[in-house]
Amino acid sequence: MSLPNHFRLQATDGAARAGALTTPHGVVRTPAFMPVGTLGAMKGVHWREVRDAGADIVLANTYHLMLRPGAERIAALGGLQKFTTWPGPILTDSGGFQVMSLAQLRKVTEEGVAFRSHIDGASVDLSPERAIEVQRLLGSDIAMQLDECVRLPAGRDEIARAMELSLRWAARSRRAFEIATPGAMLFGIVQGGDVPDLRHHSAAGLIDIGFHGYAIGGLAVGEPQAVMLAMLEETAPLLPTERPRYLMGVGTPEDILEAVGRGIDMFDCVLPTRNGRHGLAFTRRGPVNLRNARHAEDPRPLDDESPWPATRTYARAYLHHLVKANETLGAMLLSEINIAYYQSLMAGIRAAIAAGTFTSFRDAARENWARGDIAPRA
Amino acid sequence: MSLPNHFRLQATDGAARAGALTTPHGVVRTPAFMPVGTLGAMKGVHWREVRDAGADIVLANTYHLMLRPGAERIAALGGLQKFTTWPGPILTDSGGFQVMSLAQLRKVTEEGVAFRSHIDGASVDLSPERAIEVQRLLGSDIAMQLDECVRLPAGRDEIARAMELSLRWAARSRRAFEIATPGAMLFGIVQGGDVPDLRHHSAAGLIDIGFHGYAIGGLAVGEPQAVMLAMLEETAPLLPTERPRYLMGVGTPEDILEAVGRGIDMFDCVLPTRNGRHGLAFTRRGPVNLRNARHAEDPRPLDDESPWPATRTYARAYLHHLVKANETLGAMLLSEINIAYYQSLMAGIRAAIAAGTFTSFRDAARENWARGDIAPRA
Repeated sequence: MSLPNHFRLQATDGAARAGALTTPHGVVRTPAFMPVGTLGAMKGVHWREVRDAGADIVLANTYHLMLRPGAERIAALGGLQKFTTWPGPILTDSGGFQVMSLAQLRKVTEEGVAFRSHIDGASVDLSPERAIEVQRLLGSDIAMQLDECVRLPAGRDEIARAMELSLRWAARSRRAFEIATPGAMLFGIVQGGDVPDLRHHSAAGLIDIGFHGYAIGGLAVGEPQAVMLAMLEETAPLLPTERPRYLMGVGTPEDILEAVGRGIDMFDCVLPTRNGRHGLAFTRRGPVNLRNARHAEDPRPLDDESPWPATRTYARAYLHHLVKANETLGAMLLSEINIAYYQSLMAGIRAAIAAGTFTSFRDAARENWARGDIAPRA
Repeated sequence: MSLPNHFRLQATDGAARAGALTTPHGVVRTPAFMPVGTLGAMKGVHWREVRDAGADIVLANTYHLMLRPGAERIAALGGLQKFTTWPGPILTDSGGFQVMSLAQLRKVTEEGVAFRSHIDGASVDLSPERAIEVQRLLGSDIAMQLDECVRLPAGRDEIARAMELSLRWAARSRRAFEIATPGAMLFGIVQGGDVPDLRHHSAAGLIDIGFHGYAIGGLAVGEPQAVMLAMLEETAPLLPTERPRYLMGVGTPEDILEAVGRGIDMFDCVLPTRNGRHGLAFTRRGPVNLRNARHAEDPRPLDDESPWPATRTYARAYLHHLVKANETLGAMLLSEINIAYYQSLMAGIRAAIAAGTFTSFRDAARENWARGDIAPRA
């Protein structure tokens, strides 16, 4: 039985698409960028700022939350929205990716993955069914199937084995999902690394099972950008036009523009907050490293034409000082500035697609980034 | 020549006083608590929240700012208000206290104090005249004289020596201040440790020199609360009624209530933000340690009768989770909650003094703190 479709395609411009995805907690305008609140909090950014920046949806990490404070506890407290106060839609990953990157002594079997918590060494089993249950307990609007993601480069056999396993887990996830919250969604994940025919096989298998939407996983895991884009060109056209498409863990503003141009609707990445903590600001004129001494006496804001107050208010000299002195406020301001930049980029993308001017928008954005930061003061 | 008086006493209730201190950047309602933004930033709290919480004035540390980013640089950038975006009054300390507690290889002479920066080991000289110059460069609304503060317990001879030196430095500070910004103020600092006759001597000497206001220093430096209060009882009555009185580095909510009852008008302390970073919330019902496991499943806010949104919004279970997981948002929320608590306490104190009900306000506050946190859920 095919799952109901909550996505409405509103405009296309070449392969680029603009639409709206209706979730139990509100509508997500696409293309959408989901800021990552790993542990149920955006690092250094108040929820109010995430909302004000224009984010419709955020991502939370199942692996982290199931270990601490625990899915059952969050369920008892009313779910993630009630717990965190974030009122909008939340997409949760399945936990699989973090199990592979963070957990100790992990063992992948047909049944699922057994591992030890990186926090206290406790033994944990995560099966496709448990991953769905955990995401239901969290109150996720969009749940992801459990999959196995292979880091690139990897051999064809290893990629094929993980892809086939992920496909069998996809079917089990889909069966387990029958009991989920009305209106909530389940996305399947296309795997297959950098091998086109494996990507084809994975996509066909998932479509056969049938999901609310389709993610492309196993990219942005070490391969060059060209490989990632080639895989998008292989994979995106295989996916049902009427369903949302989510490129997991991507990426830089450049990556996002390229991927939108290849038919992707949704993105998530820790870059805005992680780079903010490291003193890097994303701006209309490309990344700006506030640690750089050239900012030390510069009274100008990062970008006085930005729609975001902090971006056009705080002096570079102040941000430089905060970053150099390791003041929390520096990470806080740069993280919110970056989240706001990403959201304004997405708003620009959506408007351009609706207006049929995506290509010129993309070229202008690239050109601005290439021009580099506003010229040093005379 | 006596310095102009910018303080207006508006109400008294026993020894407690309510008034208004007019500075170049606005009026400070007293009794006032000044949150501490050591390096030109409130740790974990946006300036907007400091203002919304009701703070009229903040404190910045001269020692830290003169080392990084440097007083001359801040002056070139338009002063602390322009640099930080905090629009209100700023009191700066003289740097002396931090030189004593943080700097390496410090050497106190009649001329001033020579030390090595704790950041890069650079040699720095701080004289009474340079301390005034630095504070003028920072754009301070209220500057403090350079003094030498002795940690207690200490012998009478040591306390007397430092007090006499501080008095000579006070006179030099006063002379150096002649050139300062119109409307800015200079406070002298009463020293004398826990020795009543030395406190008397210091206060008389400072009054003879003449300052815009008078601070009581050298307390809250290791002595029991009873000793501190006894010294306030000795010292406060010696100070000119019409001038503001500032108790440096104090303190807990209890300390503040006691000191207001002994005629103090101004306070500063890092406790709200420091304790916030350590998972401790100040509330109407006393301190609450959010690390405690009893909060792990508690959906209730810290205090649903608080005027501060975060205090009555976020579940204890969420704050507990953030604190346990070392999420920055936990420190951010608890720091703003604590700053807001202190400001609401000061507002309550001011209103009670104006109404002539300070004693009953103080008793009710104490009683509430003694009752402890809201009872565990049934």
